[in-house]
Amino acid sequence: MSESTRYLLNESDLPRYWYNVLADSPVSLPPVLHPVTKEPVTPDFLSALFPMDLILQEVSTERYIEIPEEVREAYKLYRPTPLIRARRLEKALGTPAHIYYKYEGASPSGSHKSNTALAQAFYNKAAGTKALTTETGAGQWGSALSMACAFFDMELEVYMVKVSYNQKPYRRFLMETFGAKVFASPTNLTQAGRAILAQDPDSPGSLGIAISEAVEVAATSNGTKKYSLGSVLNHVLLHQTVIGEEALKQMDMAGEYPDVVIGCVGGGSNFGGIAYPFLRENLRNGQRTRLLAVEPTAAPSLTRGIYAFDFGDTAQMAPIVKMYTLGHSFIPPSIHAGGLRYHGMAPSICALYDAGLIEAVAVPQRATFEAAVLFARHEGIVPAPESAHAIRAAIDEALLARQQGEKRVILFNLSGHGNFDLTAYDAFNHGRLEDYQLPEEAIQSIRERLPQVPEQIGA
Amino acid sequence: MSESTRYLLNESDLPRYWYNVLADSPVSLPPVLHPVTKEPVTPDFLSALFPMDLILQEVSTERYIEIPEEVREAYKLYRPTPLIRARRLEKALGTPAHIYYKYEGASPSGSHKSNTALAQAFYNKAAGTKALTTETGAGQWGSALSMACAFFDMELEVYMVKVSYNQKPYRRFLMETFGAKVFASPTNLTQAGRAILAQDPDSPGSLGIAISEAVEVAATSNGTKKYSLGSVLNHVLLHQTVIGEEALKQMDMAGEYPDVVIGCVGGGSNFGGIAYPFLRENLRNGQRTRLLAVEPTAAPSLTRGIYAFDFGDTAQMAPIVKMYTLGHSFIPPSIHAGGLRYHGMAPSICALYDAGLIEAVAVPQRATFEAAVLFARHEGIVPAPESAHAIRAAIDEALLARQQGEKRVILFNLSGHGNFDLTAYDAFNHGRLEDYQLPEEAIQSIRERLPQVPEQIGA
Repeated sequence: MSESTRYLLNESDLPRYWYNVLADSPVSLPPVLHPVTKEPVTPDFLSALFPMDLILQEVSTERYIEIPEEVREAYKLYRPTPLIRARRLEKALGTPAHIYYKYEGASPSGSHKSNTALAQAFYNKAAGTKALTTETGAGQWGSALSMACAFFDMELEVYMVKVSYNQKPYRRFLMETFGAKVFASPTNLTQAGRAILAQDPDSPGSLGIAISEAVEVAATSNGTKKYSLGSVLNHVLLHQTVIGEEALKQMDMAGEYPDVVIGCVGGGSNFGGIAYPFLRENLRNGQRTRLLAVEPTAAPSLTRGIYAFDFGDTAQMAPIVKMYTLGHSFIPPSIHAGGLRYHGMAPSICALYDAGLIEAVAVPQRATFEAAVLFARHEGIVPAPESAHAIRAAIDEALLARQQGEKRVILFNLSGHGNFDLTAYDAFNHGRLEDYQLPEEAIQSIRERLPQVPEQIGA
Repeated sequence: MSESTRYLLNESDLPRYWYNVLADSPVSLPPVLHPVTKEPVTPDFLSALFPMDLILQEVSTERYIEIPEEVREAYKLYRPTPLIRARRLEKALGTPAHIYYKYEGASPSGSHKSNTALAQAFYNKAAGTKALTTETGAGQWGSALSMACAFFDMELEVYMVKVSYNQKPYRRFLMETFGAKVFASPTNLTQAGRAILAQDPDSPGSLGIAISEAVEVAATSNGTKKYSLGSVLNHVLLHQTVIGEEALKQMDMAGEYPDVVIGCVGGGSNFGGIAYPFLRENLRNGQRTRLLAVEPTAAPSLTRGIYAFDFGDTAQMAPIVKMYTLGHSFIPPSIHAGGLRYHGMAPSICALYDAGLIEAVAVPQRATFEAAVLFARHEGIVPAPESAHAIRAAIDEALLARQQGEKRVILFNLSGHGNFDLTAYDAFNHGRLEDYQLPEEAIQSIRERLPQVPEQIGA
């Protein structure tokens, strides 16, 4: 009974470098294309949206990028985060597996999103940016960037997917408390929003639409506003690697090494954050950890999407990247894991998945909430519905280990708490939550909606 | 820039003993009286409500009471909690003061209440209790006990003050996710509830009424259910002293000692939890730390109440104790700090306050939310409105230090986060939050509503 439950690091263990997986990836990324010309973008095009430091990180192949002292100071409010051994859950499952989770939900904004929000706010502030625009789905990203903008004294406009805006008023109240302005997307403030509303005045919105709006506002601001994205891009996943770097040290404290590392995926940032440092150990130091990305059956980009060039947003204003996609016009069902509704996926994850270095699985919504409630009743933490996808997969791995009668060391990323998602739990608790399977026709029609790219690039 | 922000303890630093202030208090507590006979209660009366271990703790004068290993194991999910230096807030205030806060809000239930919930659930389980009943105001206590009952596999009925039940649906969803049954009090399930509803069908409820209901259900259950209280009682404050014991070690890590220790008070448990170990150092080791209890002007028991024997609940079913009271029939205004609406106060805090060993101050609601928003924008954490009262007082101390040009070391207890209280922040952000001053007539009429107790006791 006196074994450790939490593995805590000191401030001095806070990573000094972000890890760039592109330095070690055996596959290189296809170029990012301009949404109109379909030719590789220039830094000029990107500089309308991002400060130069982030553009350089986006294209960097340096293995380690130093974390600025100001960002480390801000991280210290909540980092290093704990690694926790789920002893009560193991016992409840009767499994020989050891289950560990890295808990990112104790950050002030309640999720891992602060790791990149603070970095992006810092680099923008350093470049003289006065205001940022962004989108948010479930609200984790908007909350984190709102806090970061309060810290670095910048204004922020958040375009929040309308279905989440209505489902999660507390998220808006939180962002406003930090000083942000929050709009239900699609709005009539942008061309992109007005075009969607003209077609469908009751549009529930989507991340793709909200991205279009936030990008448009920044791109047409004559340089007064920059745009900030909470997932998908290389520099975002880069900032999240502090999760995996800390976890490596903490697994060492626990005297174990994971057989499998699990994270949920929407845009891919929390998964990349925990998995990439372990992928480095696979590629450079002979480890053989399985890396498992978990997505909802309602938005299964990796497991059912097509690996192709597609727009990052609905209005075709954002760059075109090669990724597993459900099509940029995909309007996902209103599942409660709002953060996992994106039509695409981080290009780096897609390339590594395509190369067989990462695995993926899709899990349905009700089984996910069953796992979440089991976890809450034994570990005390009510997880974010997004993170619960990782819990579902971790439990399935633990049950398989029991069935096979073998020890297995499982590590998953508990990327956020579910305090703002309790209406979804209420629906589940009272049998009102439904499963959703994307119909085959929706998959069939993806290819015809893809942009035409020059043959030598698309090949 | 490389100074410490968070002071973290290891699992091995988790306290092994709770500290019982009654062993060192220079004033002893008046007897607890039976609500009907008005004579000192016997353990028999209490044993209908509580298991014997807790009754013994309630009357103990032992200085240290060992924390059971099972409770320490459960604590390890979130304890030791961090001590954080509010460097950004200090800078924003331009104060020479050093401000530290002990952060209890990173516990799974979001507040300090888990410290006693886990202990009470453990002792009840050990005594064979199958089900517990309790009340909750803002919902912190009900959430914590729901989690604790899930951990120790017991049923739970929560009587939730109706105004909070309606203001805070997420709290109910959370308790239900842990498996608890939640009722809006007053209910028609109890005599106490029906009597209130007969007088006022629209009664918003109060902690006093909810306590009556929960006590009645346990007392009339033929021993199948016990009752659990989240504050006020000696054993509850006892369990909370892990906060102060850890803070003593952490202040030592920081190389400082507090000039003033601050906590908000409703029933008094989070304040007692952080303050009593420091009071011990005052009484036994020659320290001279000021201990400051902060209450809302809307429910100012210590600063405007009367020190007298009064019922612990509205329906006069709970024991009579000597405390600073606003009268057991006090129906407080619907201020948003639901946890601070109790008509009375922990008897030990009242006796120590009466003896001049503790100070108290009342702060109005809007000034409290101003402090909370300032804190959130600099420290990242949106505090529970209850805890924000302590922040207001801490900021006032820091501003006074600036005015007087002197260093001052301030420690306050950030007893919980405000993730479930964002409607109150929304009201504040949009100018809809009002101050409330208890009218003088309400104070004048307290004495005539007090119970008559035998002269030799009341003297």
